[in-house]
Amino acid sequence: MTGALERVDVEGWTCPVPLRDSPYVVMGHGGGGAMSAELVEHLFLPAFGDAAAGDLGDCAELRLDGVRLAFSTDSFVVKPMFFPGGSIGDLAVNGTVNDLAMSGAVPLVLSTAFILQEGTALAEIGRIAQAMGAAARAAGVRLVTGDTKVVDSGGGDGVYVNTAGIGVVPSGVRIAASRARPGDAVLVSGDIGVHGIAVTSCREGLEFGTEVRSDTAPLHGLVAAMIASGADLHALRDPTRGGVAASLNEIAKAAGVGVELVERELPIPPPVRDACGLLGLDPLQVANEGKLVAMVAGEDADRLLAAMRAHPEGRAARRIGTCVPEHPGMVVARTALGGSRVIGMPLGEQLPRIC
Amino acid sequence: MTGALERVDVEGWTCPVPLRDSPYVVMGHGGGGAMSAELVEHLFLPAFGDAAAGDLGDCAELRLDGVRLAFSTDSFVVKPMFFPGGSIGDLAVNGTVNDLAMSGAVPLVLSTAFILQEGTALAEIGRIAQAMGAAARAAGVRLVTGDTKVVDSGGGDGVYVNTAGIGVVPSGVRIAASRARPGDAVLVSGDIGVHGIAVTSCREGLEFGTEVRSDTAPLHGLVAAMIASGADLHALRDPTRGGVAASLNEIAKAAGVGVELVERELPIPPPVRDACGLLGLDPLQVANEGKLVAMVAGEDADRLLAAMRAHPEGRAARRIGTCVPEHPGMVVARTALGGSRVIGMPLGEQLPRIC
Repeated sequence: MTGALERVDVEGWTCPVPLRDSPYVVMGHGGGGAMSAELVEHLFLPAFGDAAAGDLGDCAELRLDGVRLAFSTDSFVVKPMFFPGGSIGDLAVNGTVNDLAMSGAVPLVLSTAFILQEGTALAEIGRIAQAMGAAARAAGVRLVTGDTKVVDSGGGDGVYVNTAGIGVVPSGVRIAASRARPGDAVLVSGDIGVHGIAVTSCREGLEFGTEVRSDTAPLHGLVAAMIASGADLHALRDPTRGGVAASLNEIAKAAGVGVELVERELPIPPPVRDACGLLGLDPLQVANEGKLVAMVAGEDADRLLAAMRAHPEGRAARRIGTCVPEHPGMVVARTALGGSRVIGMPLGEQLPRIC
Repeated sequence: MTGALERVDVEGWTCPVPLRDSPYVVMGHGGGGAMSAELVEHLFLPAFGDAAAGDLGDCAELRLDGVRLAFSTDSFVVKPMFFPGGSIGDLAVNGTVNDLAMSGAVPLVLSTAFILQEGTALAEIGRIAQAMGAAARAAGVRLVTGDTKVVDSGGGDGVYVNTAGIGVVPSGVRIAASRARPGDAVLVSGDIGVHGIAVTSCREGLEFGTEVRSDTAPLHGLVAAMIASGADLHALRDPTRGGVAASLNEIAKAAGVGVELVERELPIPPPVRDACGLLGLDPLQVANEGKLVAMVAGEDADRLLAAMRAHPEGRAARRIGTCVPEHPGMVVARTALGGSRVIGMPLGEQLPRIC
């Protein structure tokens, strides 16, 4: 292994900076976009060899004596650790709960592993742990095993939290990115771009008139209601790092379908739109921590939307597009002026360390 | 929550430094000794509230439709990341495999979560990942799900790795620290103190004549052989952070038994003894990454020892002591001169960041 990743073009666009050929880790490798995917594909999978099973995705399914287990992990390094609407503790619980939920699983238990920097206030760790306890109670999961490491003040950065989780996938549930089909409706459960802007505005000391609060929330209750509706639900993703753009590109690629969005249908709250304008960000690439996108058989879209809107986490659900047979693997948005633009897979993350 | 931990005396000994009353994280909180236990007992458990199940120990057992699942997690922050005999990658796999194995479980799958520091060489991450793949193959576990975060160069410290793991506990197996009984034999699977000295000598540039190499190894095969022997195996621990002293104190406390060690029976290799002498360390408190201590019904000790010695990871197994009804919760060593000394629970870790 030389350590240098192969140069990979994204939709024919060659990265203009030398980072893609850098032999060193750059922030974009952690952004949940194309560079993160390359790191898994070109470094972790070849290095793990046949010890790796599947594609090392967000959530794995195991079958044990007829029980379908879902298993997922995430580390959280958000900075600052407390932000409007939540904290690293909320994210650490809801993030893993949601990764499990996106496979249709009912989350049961979480592990909690802390890497603490020497000198961090114990009171701050207490507040984070209290937030984790409250989030776990709200989500109905138990915290069952844990670990604590301390690094000296030259390493680490306050508190890093890892959670791993186990859930059970109800029999009959078949939700997978690869199941999206032309004709599917593309739904989103509510306003997008809120979490990333909440953390960034807090970090940069920006104000946008209205305070933007993180949307961090557990989504397994909403998913259960969606499954219970009887709609033929094909694919689910929670658009965290890389935003809705990354989630839709992943699904389009996995299923070999095109995705066509209607730009005016995208639910972008005005403060998020303003902040994105100011900062030069695309709201479709900004992280969400309490939203999901769903691909559902077109004839079931209305039934699923009704079920989503009846749930607190899906009140503002709406249809934002359609899966099409054209441009497989690609996401295209129809603009208000009747044109169209390609919504590419984000390269890295516009806003680092938002989860 | 005030953030300051209550002062807790260990066996009547009051810590002479003000750290115990510090409102800040100190290295000892991550040492696997008394301070780590206090952090769990006085901070994490109260903060989590009823979202926590059990004592948040190294490994939790869940029952799902009659299947007994073991679930464990550990983060690894060892410095340097490569040391004689292994790397952070080996530790990350073997550490979680061993936490599962100590409950008698057969480890099945691991998650892998990386926190990378911006600027780390990708080649170094590749070597770590290759070590993880090789260790997973050797242990017969699959790497099934993962996550990567990147922190800017002001945070983090090269590479931190978290693994969580799921295993299955065979029916009939009942291994728990609380099951130790007076009359039990106390066994150790081989030489002690090797890992901690290997990492420290490498970090400090010390040489002790013979190179000391880490003992990192998966132990579930040895545990399976021990279970298959039919011996009435009561308790198992892998004496990592805090060493044999911490493991035996934990068992003594959980079971309410005394532990009596015979000091001359402790298998301490001469280079470890020399290094400990030079550095002022107690070999009983130095970390091991490929050893276990076992409490077994006295009448089964010989049978269990024979089974251990027939396994590659237990060739040098020996009996080092006995559980006694006297001094419950306390570990005492009989010295070569006929005296005795209390082997206390280590406060923190003599050697930080060894795993």
